[in-house]
Formats: sequence, structure tokens, C-alpha cells
Amino acid sequence: MIDSRICIVGLGLMGGSLAKALFGQVETLIGVDQHAATRQVVLAQGDLDFVTGNLQVGLAAADLIILATPVRSILQILGDLPTLLPKGCQVMDLGSTKQAIGAAMAALPPTFSAIGGHPMCGKEKAGFAAADSDLFRNQNFVLCPNERTTPALEKTADAVVKAVGANPLILSAEAHDNIVAMTSHLPYLISAMLMHQVSAMADDRVWSVSASGFRDTSRLAGSDPQMMLDILLTNKEAVLSQLQRYRGELDSLAVFLEDEDEEKIASWLEESQRQHMNYRKAKSS
Amino acid sequence: MIDSRICIVGLGLMGGSLAKALFGQVETLIGVDQHAATRQVVLAQGDLDFVTGNLQVGLAAADLIILATPVRSILQILGDLPTLLPKGCQVMDLGSTKQAIGAAMAALPPTFSAIGGHPMCGKEKAGFAAADSDLFRNQNFVLCPNERTTPALEKTADAVVKAVGANPLILSAEAHDNIVAMTSHLPYLISAMLMHQVSAMADDRVWSVSASGFRDTSRLAGSDPQMMLDILLTNKEAVLSQLQRYRGELDSLAVFLEDEDEEKIASWLEESQRQHMNYRKAKSS
Repeated sequence: MIDSRICIVGLGLMGGSLAKALFGQVETLIGVDQHAATRQVVLAQGDLDFVTGNLQVGLAAADLIILATPVRSILQILGDLPTLLPKGCQVMDLGSTKQAIGAAMAALPPTFSAIGGHPMCGKEKAGFAAADSDLFRNQNFVLCPNERTTPALEKTADAVVKAVGANPLILSAEAHDNIVAMTSHLPYLISAMLMHQVSAMADDRVWSVSASGFRDTSRLAGSDPQMMLDILLTNKEAVLSQLQRYRGELDSLAVFLEDEDEEKIASWLEESQRQHMNYRKAKSS
Repeated sequence: MIDSRICIVGLGLMGGSLAKALFGQVETLIGVDQHAATRQVVLAQGDLDFVTGNLQVGLAAADLIILATPVRSILQILGDLPTLLPKGCQVMDLGSTKQAIGAAMAALPPTFSAIGGHPMCGKEKAGFAAADSDLFRNQNFVLCPNERTTPALEKTADAVVKAVGANPLILSAEAHDNIVAMTSHLPYLISAMLMHQVSAMADDRVWSVSASGFRDTSRLAGSDPQMMLDILLTNKEAVLSQLQRYRGELDSLAVFLEDEDEEKIASWLEESQRQHMNYRKAKSS
């Protein structure tokens, strides 16, 4: 049992899943969501103790606030917190990029303690309807400490992460953002570019002549545009640098193929398969 | 019951799955595989009536040959057929590209009848061990007629496709190759490029900070290199043209992001999601 009154702000896929996973394991669970329709579903399902559309009311009732909206909305709320809660409180978030949020947390008055968080899981579907209490189970959950992180909050954050079945992983915000630019934001973009390209062909037979490979490679294209927009704009440099490197990969591959350089293509393909096996081995261990 | 003696050449993922799916539904099922270890497993599992490592012996016993090796090996066998089987026979294949195979089939003597085939399914795992009798169920199975296709063979091919639970889809070899360059070969390459790029970072934390999005986007990188090499070399122009267009997508996206053009990025992201919904709708109907 976590001895805190926790207020989750934003009951979409991530916040809703956190609520479902935490319910019954914390003293009091409060939810804030601006959409009346979401609040009605949440109330009907009974996964929280209280639900409100009024941010200030929700925040005032909590010891620990967990911000689970898109990144730029988290930044907005962090900027408003000193006015909304002059007495301060504990703050955590689930935002997909961590440097801008870390800087905004560090700028809070010392009455606040704050820590960044990012669970390494997701779905291409958004909203409370897609929320799942098992979403975090056995997944890594990055925690990014900053100048406002106290030992007490670090301990509470660790307990929250473990309560939802995830593994805490401490990382600097900078390391986090550089790595996810490659492991998450680039995969999203290559998936979305693929979807754009196939759609541009405007040939009805395209979908019939596609199989599970296309399905999996294009899955992320279905991600929530608002969430992705905030991610791209708050991790612009790292994402651009990954796009640049990806273009380099593409250019060398095109040259091998143009030249029909069988040996180079073969070793490039073998290396892909070998690395894929390393990845699968690392994930299964 | 299909009234034919069918010989499947190559008992890997596709040939092995076809054998498992057809067994019991054809008069006689013969398998040819050059690997003794594969033949032993096949014999132990009992999914075929006869198994041999001798191509000529297998072919001589059949009315219908189904070639299920990588594309360039199919081309090699098609070139040898007039010598191996001077009396001719019916030929079908499961190769991933269809124009080169269609041309080789058209060049067979008129004692042969032949039709191209390509089931729209697969796995990133190769070999008989990954074979699955349900692999083709409810999937589209492209059939590409050529100058050597007779009405009788077209009927038999249709029966084979339906016997394994798939839906026949007649397409020209050229249309097939152009479409799969985009829906299959490009997805493979973008997946493999991603795997190369992530591996190049050589950071142990990379795999910990990756989630299901990375897993799905990189899955195809595990595909069989020999199969992919043959695909790329026999569909070079169409693949290069898709890579070129993909580079164009990447360049425009990078400019939007460099300029922080929020409106353009947002509408690009929304379009991805909209097209992904169209795709999901088309596949579920």
C-alpha cells in the first residue's frame, strides 16, 4: 500500500492504465481529465476514488501529482503549478521526452519536489478506452532525477513503478532523450513515412498485396498525432540527427543495390539478421 | 481432394508450410530438400508421402512441381527443367518476385505449363522448423499467369490455393513486383536500416530503453538474408525507385521539423493516422 493521495492528470492511454494498475494500492486515487465523456467512462468503471474536470481541485487534494498528458501540456501545467499550489507538493510525470520537462521541474520553487518518468511501453491506440492495467507489467520505467528530486520522492516514485509491475531504470534526461530519439521517435517516423508513401500510390490493390510485415512496420503510424507532435518539437535536435543518420544508411544501401554489389548487400543483410538476433536475445533475458 | 502428384521443391518456411497445409488433400505429396537434417525432421513429422534429396527423382514422380526455394534458385531450376524433364509437366512457384520467374517460365518448351504464385504471408523465421499449416489461412495468394499458363493449370493452382485456406488473386507479374517493392521490400529495408543504425550506437542501454514500437518496426530485419538478397537483385529497379521516394519523404519531413513548422508537422502526423485507419479498415473488411 502506498501511503499517498495520488492525483493523475490526464486519463488517456498512459494515465488511464496507471490508474487501473494503481487502484487499490494507494491511499487515495484522484483523476483529472478535461473531457466529460472520459470522466463518465472512468466513473462507470470505478477505477479511481474521485474524478474531476477541475485541475486545481484535483491537485489540491493530492500529496503526489502524476502528469500524464502530452509533453507540451505537462510543460504548461508545470509552469502554472506555483500559482495553482503555492504550498508546493510532489510531482512526477509520464511524458515521452524528458529534457524540457526536467528543466521545467528544476525551475519550480523549493516547496516542490519533482522527478521525471517515462514507462517504456505503449500502444498505437490512444484514450482511456485503450487503457490496460497490465500495460506496465515487466516493462522498464525510466526515472530521470533533476535538481528538485528529493530522496523521499525518489523512494515514492520507485514504489509507484514497482506497484504497477514495472522495473525502475534511472537515467539522465539527456541520455533518455538521445536514446528514445532512435528507439522510439525514429521508428515512429519511418512507420509514418511508409504509410504516407503507400497511400500516395492510390492503388486499391495495395492493401490486398500486403502481409504481416507491412502491418507491423506501419503499426506506429497509427499513434496519437498530438502526442507525437509534442515529442518531435521537444526533442527536435536528437530526432533530426537520427533522421540524418538514417538518410546516410539509405544512401549507402541504394549505392550497393545500384551497383548490384552482391557481396556488400549480402553482408549488410546478414548483419541485420545478426543484430536482430542480439536484440531478441537481450529482450528475452 | 486434388487429383495430382505434387512435388514441393524446398521445404523451408513456405514450402514446409505448404506441405503441412496440403498433406492429406492431394493424391501424393513429394518433398525435395537438399539438407539431410531437414529431410530427417520432415520424415519424423510425417507431413509428406515421400522425401528425397534428389531433385530429378522428386520431379520425375510428379504431375505438378511447386518451386519453393529463394528466387534465384527457382530461376536456376526453371532453366534446368527441359533437361531434367524432357516430357514436360506442370510448374508453379512461391517466389517473392514474379517478373524474372515469369520470363523464365515463358521460355520453357510448350510441353510445360507454368504459373507464378506468391502467398502474401510470411514470418521473420526461416526453415521447416518455423513451418505452420495455418500460415496461408485467410491470406491473399497472388497468381501470375504467363505465356505458358494453361486453363487446366490455372484451375489446379486455384484449387491448391483454396486447399490451404488462402484467397487467389490474379495479378500481372509487373503489377505484383511494383506493389510488393513498396508493401514488402521497402518495409524490410527500413526495418533493416533501423537495426543497423541502432546497433551502430553500441550503447548497452539501448535495448532497455526500447518498447513494443521498436520491436514491431525492427521485426523484418530478422528475415532470411539469402531470400532477401534474391528479392532485391530480381526486383532492383522497383526497389530503388521506392527507396528514392522514401528519401524524398524523409527530406520533406526533416525540413518541416528543422523549421519547427507546427502546422505542417501536425497535418502530416494526422494524415499518417488517418491512412493507418483506412488500412486497418481495409484489412478487417
